[in-house]
Amino acid sequence: MTLLIKNGEIVTAEKQYTADVLIEGETISLIGENLSAPEGTETIDATGKYIFPGFIDPHVHIHLPFMGTFAKDTHATASQAALIGGTTTFIEMLAPAGSEELRDGWNIWSQMAAGNSACDYTFHIGVTRWDEGTEQTLRELVADGMTSFKVFLAYKGAFGIEDATLYHTLKLARELGVVVTAHCENAELVAQLQARLLSEGKTGPEWHEPSRPEQVEADGTAHFATFLEMTGATGYVVHLSNARALKAALDARERGVNIHIESVIPHFLLDKTYAERPGVEGAKHVMSPPLRDKSNQAALWQALKNGEIDTVATDHCPFDVDQKRMGDDNFTLIPNGIPAIEDRVNLLYTYGVSRGGLSLSRFVAAASTRAAQIFGLYPRKGAIEVGSDADLVVYDPNYRGTISAQLSHVNNDYSGFEGFEIDGRPSVVTVRGQVAVRDGQFMGEPGRGQLLRRSPQQVQRAEVPV
Amino acid sequence: MTLLIKNGEIVTAEKQYTADVLIEGETISLIGENLSAPEGTETIDATGKYIFPGFIDPHVHIHLPFMGTFAKDTHATASQAALIGGTTTFIEMLAPAGSEELRDGWNIWSQMAAGNSACDYTFHIGVTRWDEGTEQTLRELVADGMTSFKVFLAYKGAFGIEDATLYHTLKLARELGVVVTAHCENAELVAQLQARLLSEGKTGPEWHEPSRPEQVEADGTAHFATFLEMTGATGYVVHLSNARALKAALDARERGVNIHIESVIPHFLLDKTYAERPGVEGAKHVMSPPLRDKSNQAALWQALKNGEIDTVATDHCPFDVDQKRMGDDNFTLIPNGIPAIEDRVNLLYTYGVSRGGLSLSRFVAAASTRAAQIFGLYPRKGAIEVGSDADLVVYDPNYRGTISAQLSHVNNDYSGFEGFEIDGRPSVVTVRGQVAVRDGQFMGEPGRGQLLRRSPQQVQRAEVPV
Amino acid sequence: MTLLIKNGEIVTAEKQYTADVLIEGETISLIGENLSAPEGTETIDATGKYIFPGFIDPHVHIHLPFMGTFAKDTHATASQAALIGGTTTFIEMLAPAGSEELRDGWNIWSQMAAGNSACDYTFHIGVTRWDEGTEQTLRELVADGMTSFKVFLAYKGAFGIEDATLYHTLKLARELGVVVTAHCENAELVAQLQARLLSEGKTGPEWHEPSRPEQVEADGTAHFATFLEMTGATGYVVHLSNARALKAALDARERGVNIHIESVIPHFLLDKTYAERPGVEGAKHVMSPPLRDKSNQAALWQALKNGEIDTVATDHCPFDVDQKRMGDDNFTLIPNGIPAIEDRVNLLYTYGVSRGGLSLSRFVAAASTRAAQIFGLYPRKGAIEVGSDADLVVYDPNYRGTISAQLSHVNNDYSGFEGFEIDGRPSVVTVRGQVAVRDGQFMGEPGRGQLLRRSPQQVQRAEVPV
Amino acid sequence: MTLLIKNGEIVTAEKQYTADVLIEGETISLIGENLSAPEGTETIDATGKYIFPGFIDPHVHIHLPFMGTFAKDTHATASQAALIGGTTTFIEMLAPAGSEELRDGWNIWSQMAAGNSACDYTFHIGVTRWDEGTEQTLRELVADGMTSFKVFLAYKGAFGIEDATLYHTLKLARELGVVVTAHCENAELVAQLQARLLSEGKTGPEWHEPSRPEQVEADGTAHFATFLEMTGATGYVVHLSNARALKAALDARERGVNIHIESVIPHFLLDKTYAERPGVEGAKHVMSPPLRDKSNQAALWQALKNGEIDTVATDHCPFDVDQKRMGDDNFTLIPNGIPAIEDRVNLLYTYGVSRGGLSLSRFVAAASTRAAQIFGLYPRKGAIEVGSDADLVVYDPNYRGTISAQLSHVNNDYSGFEGFEIDGRPSVVTVRGQVAVRDGQFMGEPGRGQLLRRSPQQVQRAEVPV
Repeated sequence: MTLLIKNGEIVTAEKQYTADVLIEGETISLIGENLSAPEGTETIDATGKYIFPGFIDPHVHIHLPFMGTFAKDTHATASQAALIGGTTTFIEMLAPAGSEELRDGWNIWSQMAAGNSACDYTFHIGVTRWDEGTEQTLRELVADGMTSFKVFLAYKGAFGIEDATLYHTLKLARELGVVVTAHCENAELVAQLQARLLSEGKTGPEWHEPSRPEQVEADGTAHFATFLEMTGATGYVVHLSNARALKAALDARERGVNIHIESVIPHFLLDKTYAERPGVEGAKHVMSPPLRDKSNQAALWQALKNGEIDTVATDHCPFDVDQKRMGDDNFTLIPNGIPAIEDRVNLLYTYGVSRGGLSLSRFVAAASTRAAQIFGLYPRKGAIEVGSDADLVVYDPNYRGTISAQLSHVNNDYSGFEGFEIDGRPSVVTVRGQVAVRDGQFMGEPGRGQLLRRSPQQVQRAEVPV
Repeated sequence: MTLLIKNGEIVTAEKQYTADVLIEGETISLIGENLSAPEGTETIDATGKYIFPGFIDPHVHIHLPFMGTFAKDTHATASQAALIGGTTTFIEMLAPAGSEELRDGWNIWSQMAAGNSACDYTFHIGVTRWDEGTEQTLRELVADGMTSFKVFLAYKGAFGIEDATLYHTLKLARELGVVVTAHCENAELVAQLQARLLSEGKTGPEWHEPSRPEQVEADGTAHFATFLEMTGATGYVVHLSNARALKAALDARERGVNIHIESVIPHFLLDKTYAERPGVEGAKHVMSPPLRDKSNQAALWQALKNGEIDTVATDHCPFDVDQKRMGDDNFTLIPNGIPAIEDRVNLLYTYGVSRGGLSLSRFVAAASTRAAQIFGLYPRKGAIEVGSDADLVVYDPNYRGTISAQLSHVNNDYSGFEGFEIDGRPSVVTVRGQVAVRDGQFMGEPGRGQLLRRSPQQVQRAEVPV
Repeated sequence: MTLLIKNGEIVTAEKQYTADVLIEGETISLIGENLSAPEGTETIDATGKYIFPGFIDPHVHIHLPFMGTFAKDTHATASQAALIGGTTTFIEMLAPAGSEELRDGWNIWSQMAAGNSACDYTFHIGVTRWDEGTEQTLRELVADGMTSFKVFLAYKGAFGIEDATLYHTLKLARELGVVVTAHCENAELVAQLQARLLSEGKTGPEWHEPSRPEQVEADGTAHFATFLEMTGATGYVVHLSNARALKAALDARERGVNIHIESVIPHFLLDKTYAERPGVEGAKHVMSPPLRDKSNQAALWQALKNGEIDTVATDHCPFDVDQKRMGDDNFTLIPNGIPAIEDRVNLLYTYGVSRGGLSLSRFVAAASTRAAQIFGLYPRKGAIEVGSDADLVVYDPNYRGTISAQLSHVNNDYSGFEGFEIDGRPSVVTVRGQVAVRDGQFMGEPGRGQLLRRSPQQVQRAEVPV
Repeated sequence: MTLLIKNGEIVTAEKQYTADVLIEGETISLIGENLSAPEGTETIDATGKYIFPGFIDPHVHIHLPFMGTFAKDTHATASQAALIGGTTTFIEMLAPAGSEELRDGWNIWSQMAAGNSACDYTFHIGVTRWDEGTEQTLRELVADGMTSFKVFLAYKGAFGIEDATLYHTLKLARELGVVVTAHCENAELVAQLQARLLSEGKTGPEWHEPSRPEQVEADGTAHFATFLEMTGATGYVVHLSNARALKAALDARERGVNIHIESVIPHFLLDKTYAERPGVEGAKHVMSPPLRDKSNQAALWQALKNGEIDTVATDHCPFDVDQKRMGDDNFTLIPNGIPAIEDRVNLLYTYGVSRGGLSLSRFVAAASTRAAQIFGLYPRKGAIEVGSDADLVVYDPNYRGTISAQLSHVNNDYSGFEGFEIDGRPSVVTVRGQVAVRDGQFMGEPGRGQLLRRSPQQVQRAEVPV
């Protein structure tokens, strides 16, 4: 199949120019002015529209057991919602419980995704314990192309790991050229603060934020950075939510630690007053790290403009209202998550580019290119170049709409961004050369997505102090 | 007994002036010019000399089981060495092993000191575990006047405590108005780095510093500060050794954490090249945190001048050459410690005041007054005022000498400061009105020292975030 | 005359205790429990009250030509208002215009004060130009005991000085042991911003703050600090108003610059919304640096608690409503100043100690002792000790009142703090042994105040880089 | 003419891959694997070599009047030396003295370059005064494509400008979308320190650094940043030399100031001990800001790796030994400059990439791409893309050589990097499709270089505070 996208304004992380893009088979075959195309080519007129590389969401949960229940999406629903919103690749966390064998986890997750995702995908391998066998399985999975790990410093007793496991994981990661992504909150403090608040009768969702305050995240971030520094591994802080944690990460980078920073779209736009809304309205906005005091948002936006924040992801994790109600009497039982896989790109475009002074190039970098570079997908993904996969988003900056659960394609019954206006949306989205979305409708092939195997990163390796 | 000290230049943490001091019984009864004294008064001519309040060493180990052996001093030897060096009060750590009952530990330590110390003393209560009984015993000891605790974030498996115990300890401390002193190094990293170095055949004392590098201490310091912040307790970082850990502590203070800072005399004057000397010469200079790169010394001196470092102590802990040799083949088995109880004051005077631009008032504050204020001894100790204990040091700034093990009164066979010149020493030292030292000779009553019971601190309490 | 103050709780910068104070002549002659006094002694019962050292305001303007008019107070009115509020010593700026001879200025100011001030006082010598003669006059005034200078980096074309004059002034100050106080705002930026705002028709008092924003003050502060560093002089930043300027000053201190920090009471309690009030209500709250965004107040209070801010002064400078109206059509013509000499102590006590967690000792240090120490008045002033001047404030913490212009003794027709509640006030104020105030009434001898001659400071001198 | 470069490893700021590059006329016409070429095409075998985009030196002086003499290069000599070293574009400063008309300066400079440079070039327009006419000429030159300015905060009395001129320049720059480059040192401090040192008989080149110490540069940098912040203009700090100035610039960026950072190759590799060499050996290494204490180099390299330093330039400015001798008796008369236009790329490759852990992509970004992006030349320059100018460097990483004046093509009789080993050099350099250099020999057309006209930058504009 051949596609020709005419007259769009191509925007990459580096530049912006008007040209035509010719797609033959699954990849881009030519970029230039006034391209003509062989007979039978479908032509898409992109006049007045942007052409972006397909967006990448490096932090989603689809199949996720959490507090005895499961997130609502399937790989089918999540991937189609992603595509409608312009995201053509996602990276899911393989999140076995600490008691499960990692290999079993791999089998479950990879089989659930296979043949069900409409877009390409890959996995961060969750490391939740370290015993005989863990290291061997990790080596095998890395050899098989799964070249990033995920660890939790939080969630004591569940996914959370001890310092010794963190050290072993990072040491192996450095050896193998693997990036380690980390949820950075001090587990013990959260546990103690939860206990204290509950003992004082503070049970509503408004107490979720005080139970894991900014200090707890900043401490976790600094701690992770120290371990990176001592092992020479490359790290990636997920969903960094506040100015103080940001400072901890930047201080580390300043002294030579290889540390990447991700923030997620809810922290740029929502604040803790959302979680303070009465009853289940509050619970809908419970995630971890929690929505913060609004004053942090300016710091996040500035760091994004400066390129200090590498990526903007979602931590997509949909639990429905019934599930959220599990925590009606105890905020610690509210399943965590604010679904955003469909809305991330439109929100970042609207409140960043259209209304906030974020440059188009930084927008593309943060929502696509940097993730591809960090996680070994570039320039297959994240780029508009001859030879790159033809994952493209023809984006209409003149569209006007409003986010609502009713219009959403995520398998959930509420939206955390209900009522937010958007100033644009994808007109056409392609996945490896095939049109998957037109004007908000999924038109693609449901299970066509492929598992992306990746090479280890050849990161600049910091000297290890010892 | 009545003593009159004439014509000395009185130096306190606030001011400097020439006056006479009259001592009746155990306390100061009058300060003024041209005082005359009742018949029978002994008069000491302090012309050309300073009169300092008796110095306080808030961090010493006398009875200390460590790595299967014991520090060499007794309360008799240590207290007399202290007095010869101008220190009239020390605070020892009650350091029961994690397996011991705290009450048993109290009995052992308090009985060893009672009737043996020539100077006054008190204890930091070591908290090394948290079980049924610990809290009750702590409450009793505080009620009995032992109003400071000590915890170790380092020494995994020995004194070291988990985050949960740290949290409980700080919460209790805040309730009781107790200051918590902390040895701040990340235990897990030290354990891993030790293992790695040994596995690489790096066994000499020069590897002690790399096994607990600056990052490990900075991480521990920041972590302790976070826990202080989350509990509202008042903390005291012991033996802070480097610029990076200093920054961590000062950042915390800047955001309102109640945190005091102690550094010890070895870190101001010795650097890691001492521990890199061959064989047991290196082992003599092994302590934790280790002697650091020399570049840190300027930062410590500056922070001392600024009043950011509150106190200069010793971490006195004498192990002799035979004991140090236990680690000949494995640096992790070297008993830690560099004895300094006798030399601290003279060294700080010489390299701070005489040669380094430290003001006399800051010198007195750091070596005496601040410790008294922080640990509830002020103005009984640390002051020269009517009513204060007559613990005084008449100091001769014209004395010139050289430190050597041979001249030392500490019960040890080497000095970590061998060959260091000193530009002054105490001429006369009094303990509660009695002359205990004259010109380097102990002339006092061996077991006259008293256990000092203290009131809880009425610290300005930070708001607790939750 | 002999006075005996019984049973008060004495509070100094170091400690707090209950004792009697005996005053014979102009100084304190005895402090102790259960003092009895010779016949004829007046006894003041201070039960339930604090006894503070007389407060010192190190930054006031009394005779001040400014924008073609003069501040309203005389030395008589200002000193009596000061005393009623507990301030027993002030330091006024001798502020000759750049065109005046410094010696002439000295004659004018010193003669206006002599025989008119009811409390003791001294001067900062304003250096507003540097020519033949300036240096000689400065040397003479220092020799005569005026051992502090004042410079303005702001007020281009009026008091403001160029970098070359700043350099010469600091070099002389270092030679003579003189502290240089500085108003730190970048003059050029203020001039340009004023011009721009006026050209845009922004003429109201609400534009005063934007015309000299935080950046301008932070830049001036950093610039002053660099010059201190390069000359080795000791500096004192006056009326530091915001977190960013604070950081500039603390960064300098961290690297060894001798820099003291003063903030003034309006910046702790008022914010820029006061200056945004319509018409002359806004103008009443115009001072420089301007009232800031409220978010700065927490940083100032924290720095005060930490002892990072040395002193809390007023920058007292009363212009009445008619004078303020000079700027009705042009905010740059509003005479600057918010009078506070009478209210400073009560406000700092109320919102710091009584309601804000500031310790009594830090309160005394900031409002009295530190100013005495920095400016060469200690321990004659700022202390409660045998031999100190008997400037004492018996303070009633049970008094409740409200600030209003109507009740004020400052020669002005409005109060910047109208309606602020106060939780205490002086019951009795003494000046060198004579009662000057009782319960809000001046009862003293109008012109009894003396000019205080001071010795040069023996500051710890930083090494000069070159 | 048609060129085909086969089998090289293409390295850009984003990626690295092996491909062939076809050049037709002056631009790149095709990039791909196994390209074949029309008859008559010259083929260059790049097997085992890198293909870099032509390097850009954004900071050189060629025609430069300085201290009564002129730099030695002509546009012919400098451009050919540049090309031999891989630099295919330079940006020269048009540096009229403060007394000259800007338009006259433009005529002189542009005519000297026209027809003489072998490579392409453009100008930063020096703003050295601000009067009637300056603004108009600036507007015309910007309209003519000279879209960057240069100002000096240093060199009082010569190029140096006052704050008012700085403000006007930045305001105009913001209006026109022009980047303002700035030499940031406080002029007054330098003048005073020079005077002081000379008066103390300190006249040798070793006193050059102490006469303009790090503080002076940090102060200038912070000051420039404040003015950027207050005007919303985009700035570019030239030749940032030390950790403290770096911190000043990064702090500004953190709070949203649009500020780019350039460092120059001498500061990465040489330190102040070079200028302390006796006699003219020291003078050879005199530049401003001066060579610094070696400890700064690690900070510069780290910031370069982090992307915090945008560009690595030269500040090329050759004065020969006779000229350097003008300052034999007075270091302030030594003409400033260390020539490096020929050696920059090889040195950065050798000590950054080959021996220092700098990634190839960051190397290309810093030495080429970022300069193109910042100064409006991208993607015509600084990129390897279809349509870009065919300025390419085929680089041989197996070459080994040593820098010496004897081998240099700069018109000078010494090298500041004499004896430095290099681990690579350009094999072939093309300028707009023509081979200009082969293996260290200039083979091109001497006067073929073009003046590059640029569009104003569409920078993300910071909000102006007022």
